[in-house]
Amino acid sequence: MKTDFTIIADGGITAPQGFKAGAAQAAVKKAGRYDLAVVASEVSAIAAGVFTTNKFQAAPVLVSRRHLQQESAWGFVVNSGCANACTGEPGLQDAVKMAQDTAQGLGCKPEAILVASTGVIGVPLPLERVTAGIAAACGNLSREHGELAAQAILTTDTFKKELAVKYEEEGKTVTLGAMAKGSGMIHPDMATMLGFVTTDAAITKDCLQQALCEANSYSFNMITVDRDTSTNDSLFILANGQAGNPVIDSAESAAYGRFLDALTYLCTELAKLIAKDGEGATKLIEVRVQGAKTLQDARLAARSIAASNLVKAAIFGADANWGRIVCALGYSGADFDPALADVYIGDLAMAQNGQGLNFDEEKAARLLKEDAVVLKVVLKQGPADATAWGCDLTYDYVKINGDYRT
Amino acid sequence: MKTDFTIIADGGITAPQGFKAGAAQAAVKKAGRYDLAVVASEVSAIAAGVFTTNKFQAAPVLVSRRHLQQESAWGFVVNSGCANACTGEPGLQDAVKMAQDTAQGLGCKPEAILVASTGVIGVPLPLERVTAGIAAACGNLSREHGELAAQAILTTDTFKKELAVKYEEEGKTVTLGAMAKGSGMIHPDMATMLGFVTTDAAITKDCLQQALCEANSYSFNMITVDRDTSTNDSLFILANGQAGNPVIDSAESAAYGRFLDALTYLCTELAKLIAKDGEGATKLIEVRVQGAKTLQDARLAARSIAASNLVKAAIFGADANWGRIVCALGYSGADFDPALADVYIGDLAMAQNGQGLNFDEEKAARLLKEDAVVLKVVLKQGPADATAWGCDLTYDYVKINGDYRT
Repeated sequence: MKTDFTIIADGGITAPQGFKAGAAQAAVKKAGRYDLAVVASEVSAIAAGVFTTNKFQAAPVLVSRRHLQQESAWGFVVNSGCANACTGEPGLQDAVKMAQDTAQGLGCKPEAILVASTGVIGVPLPLERVTAGIAAACGNLSREHGELAAQAILTTDTFKKELAVKYEEEGKTVTLGAMAKGSGMIHPDMATMLGFVTTDAAITKDCLQQALCEANSYSFNMITVDRDTSTNDSLFILANGQAGNPVIDSAESAAYGRFLDALTYLCTELAKLIAKDGEGATKLIEVRVQGAKTLQDARLAARSIAASNLVKAAIFGADANWGRIVCALGYSGADFDPALADVYIGDLAMAQNGQGLNFDEEKAARLLKEDAVVLKVVLKQGPADATAWGCDLTYDYVKINGDYRT
Repeated sequence: MKTDFTIIADGGITAPQGFKAGAAQAAVKKAGRYDLAVVASEVSAIAAGVFTTNKFQAAPVLVSRRHLQQESAWGFVVNSGCANACTGEPGLQDAVKMAQDTAQGLGCKPEAILVASTGVIGVPLPLERVTAGIAAACGNLSREHGELAAQAILTTDTFKKELAVKYEEEGKTVTLGAMAKGSGMIHPDMATMLGFVTTDAAITKDCLQQALCEANSYSFNMITVDRDTSTNDSLFILANGQAGNPVIDSAESAAYGRFLDALTYLCTELAKLIAKDGEGATKLIEVRVQGAKTLQDARLAARSIAASNLVKAAIFGADANWGRIVCALGYSGADFDPALADVYIGDLAMAQNGQGLNFDEEKAARLLKEDAVVLKVVLKQGPADATAWGCDLTYDYVKINGDYRT
């Protein structure tokens, strides 16, 4: 990060200029809980998106992909409680209807609306209630309702995830705001179920898409809760140009670099919140891999360790069973020489050059009992580093997922 | 399976002619538990092996690979309680010493002995106790001690896994016996931590290796407990020719086909026992994928579903959340058209042509409460079928692995 930027206290999806949010209780989830959010730009915005690689793509993913072919967008609509996935042609029509209803509320074309859903797979949307909810959300759009929108998109999440940052660009203030939700079916490609970013930066569509992909590869794609890549994963960004900065139109420019820094920071912090709020999690796990041959090797290794059930369970139990780190490193697919690998828990060396060390068990247990546990692997193969995030595997993960629908 | 064969009641690793086993309490595990096994052929045997693909290969794996370059072998030695992995050059010397000690006990060359270890990674073997244990095991070799050997190789397993079958080959009885252990760090490539097969069949080294690889691809490589591919996975087979059948010397022959059928059956049954005895498991999960384009696609799909934490937790909770099956199918990497996929729990259809159906929740819950749960996916893409096995994800898995070393 070379860019100085400021974190906006209590900032979220409506922090950038010209964005409003609305939320409603549409009774898709249990009655009395917010489950529908609309975010709108006051002017036409440039839009970009990144989506799940799962073969089964939910209806809203298919519709949003299509709508992103448009040059611009005006907003997006999100429901929680129902994923609208594996719902066939009727589900596709429902997703289109969500865009139409939102477009009607905002006074734009349906193609200018992106759609996202999260919740149970294979169940049809209660469309009448959703339509009513969209009308209600469009009716209460305001800058103050950003927080309510961040609340409305959650499922098994235990806290809302929102953040905003700003930085100076040629005398203008550029702001980025975001919200996201986890917290199960979380694994790279993409890792988050849903992430949303708004910005008042002026930027071209190509640069925006490239920046989103790049920021995503360091953030949402580097978290894992359970290795399950969802059918609905979506990350959207809307850029409405209201900051008044000179349009960012080249990925080689310094201005692009600053924007990317801010976007990567924002996405990384949200991704870490998702990992920390993984279903049943009590600890955030950060896995740092250093000295890999290539970035791809470093990422494979870091994600493999962060995703290992055995590593996750050992950290839940504060058991310094570093052999499991080595095991997950060894089957990661990364290219390296096992006889050179060093393994650390925090700053405590567990193994050097592929061989176990005598270590201070008490100190290791103390490090493993902290809220955030850092695992480090040094491969001594080349210049590439990567960091991945995950969470521990707990009784509560099993409990939550043994009985999700009821 | 086209071959008729008979399951030998209470048969195990010493069921084939000319094999004996010995076991000892070497105090590698807690004192008073069997933790060392030796299996020996009375005559020189043909040997073959399949090993882990993990980059970190335990010392016994490296030594056994080297010894398998010999034309023949006389037996193998196994300890539980310590994996002798990530132990560097000293660990390698310890594994060689295990072969030397066993060779001394059996009166053969050290290169004629295969070595396997299972247990904690990164801890050195208590070599003096192991040497004493090997001497003791070599001193009590007998046909009756096959069961003791099967006991001695276990770690967190809750029951021993052994089996033997026999069939007729040109007037001679060919017998195959086997033992295996699970039950964590279980995932394809190879899936079992340790599997051992003996047979009195007369067969060439090439045919034996090919049959072992083929049987393994349908059995041990199709089970998963936790997606963690261990550093020690090994499957050995010794064939000592004592059945007196005409030597099986061509993989095209009918005799090879019969041998392969028996070996595949044996390995598949043992693999299912390992899945059923997965750490903390209460249920065996069998995933059948039918109508894939290729065998590789079918296997990818079946293994992905069997390995999904969310599927496993849902089955633990007897929750018919079939969307998770679809999700794991979708990210499996298998090539198929999601709009054609049908999903079943037992014989109850959950989804047809990629779309959810109304189903009998009570019947689904009943099917999910059985000891063995069958999930079926029909892809309608081609002729290839595959079956994978796994187990449910339970509180006890977390408990066992949160506190494995203490």
